[in-house]
Amino acid sequence: MSNVLSVLKERVSANNFDFTKTISEADIKEIVSYATEAPSSFNIQHWRFVAVNDKAVQEKLKAAAYNQKKVADCSVTFVIFGDVNGVDKLALAYEPMLKAGAMDKATFDGMLGMANGMYKGNAQGCRDEAIRSGSLAAMNLMIAAQAKGFISAPMIGFDPAAVSKLLGAPANLVPVIMISVGHAAPGNWPRKPRFSTDKVLSFNSYKESF
Amino acid sequence: MSNVLSVLKERVSANNFDFTKTISEADIKEIVSYATEAPSSFNIQHWRFVAVNDKAVQEKLKAAAYNQKKVADCSVTFVIFGDVNGVDKLALAYEPMLKAGAMDKATFDGMLGMANGMYKGNAQGCRDEAIRSGSLAAMNLMIAAQAKGFISAPMIGFDPAAVSKLLGAPANLVPVIMISVGHAAPGNWPRKPRFSTDKVLSFNSYKESF
Repeated sequence: MSNVLSVLKERVSANNFDFTKTISEADIKEIVSYATEAPSSFNIQHWRFVAVNDKAVQEKLKAAAYNQKKVADCSVTFVIFGDVNGVDKLALAYEPMLKAGAMDKATFDGMLGMANGMYKGNAQGCRDEAIRSGSLAAMNLMIAAQAKGFISAPMIGFDPAAVSKLLGAPANLVPVIMISVGHAAPGNWPRKPRFSTDKVLSFNSYKESF
Repeated sequence: MSNVLSVLKERVSANNFDFTKTISEADIKEIVSYATEAPSSFNIQHWRFVAVNDKAVQEKLKAAAYNQKKVADCSVTFVIFGDVNGVDKLALAYEPMLKAGAMDKATFDGMLGMANGMYKGNAQGCRDEAIRSGSLAAMNLMIAAQAKGFISAPMIGFDPAAVSKLLGAPANLVPVIMISVGHAAPGNWPRKPRFSTDKVLSFNSYKESF
């Protein structure tokens, strides 16, 4: 499994994409299928993906992202949204298990009751969860892209209202992150250094080490 | 790279851990080192990790997590926090690049100015970012654990105030997620089904497909 770990180390946020190269729809769908293997609270799957690969739309998206060149240069820019009302789709998510007998009706009802109790009327919790689930999926997406030989660039430097308007996303969808994916062009920066593990990790109680 | 992709598919949120087995401190540190390979806004690295592997502390953590058995049964439960004041450590994060000449002083000052402009006084943005960065790291952590032959269980079902108090985490640290990691015991559920890619993905504009 060592090459799994090397992929985690090799992934680096890129800036320079080869704008002449494309990624097939089949590859885009495959990358998203791996993103959705992420876990989510109760398996709600708050994530919704818009793959922007039409150059005219990429240019508009770039304008909504402070003119970051990579948004339009890359082969596809994914906008990942998180649904703050995601819990409303939970019954649909469990339906296949209920029908297959992998989940009984009492468990189904119990899980739905717990999830509704946790999220209904809890606006901050719903937003947190939309961002958390969308971000878990985002990391999987970048790893899958890297594993398939592409490079990626995650961004939060964009105007969320402008992005939602451009893509026609309803108000219950929070833009979580934007990720450009494509083929490398020369001149990308090497990985930025990280704080050492000892600085960010402690055992059994929190220790401030900065 | 196909085994990278298979690890993403094989990871499943587990419930049953072998409570007789441990994970070495070296392995715990290695897993966290991969988690910190995740990207973060401006490379702020909002994540802070507490690895709880003392059984007495695990029992208290379990009590703060609605008595979920796995919290104490597993070899180690990671609590990932996100620092809402993370931007205050950005100069420290860039210092090695500045010293090595990989970043000049003008870029250093410019990046710090942009980051402060984006986050200072923006409480919602700071919280969002703490959760986003912590979640990106969390996904890497689960993948690294899986790649090393362990199983994992992400949880948000816990009392955040009780967890912070137990571990002595200051108020600027938001508990983002809790992840139990360990060795599999029998009886874990298979992967829960996901919505099909076509249901959660559209091209160039958002399409509601539920």
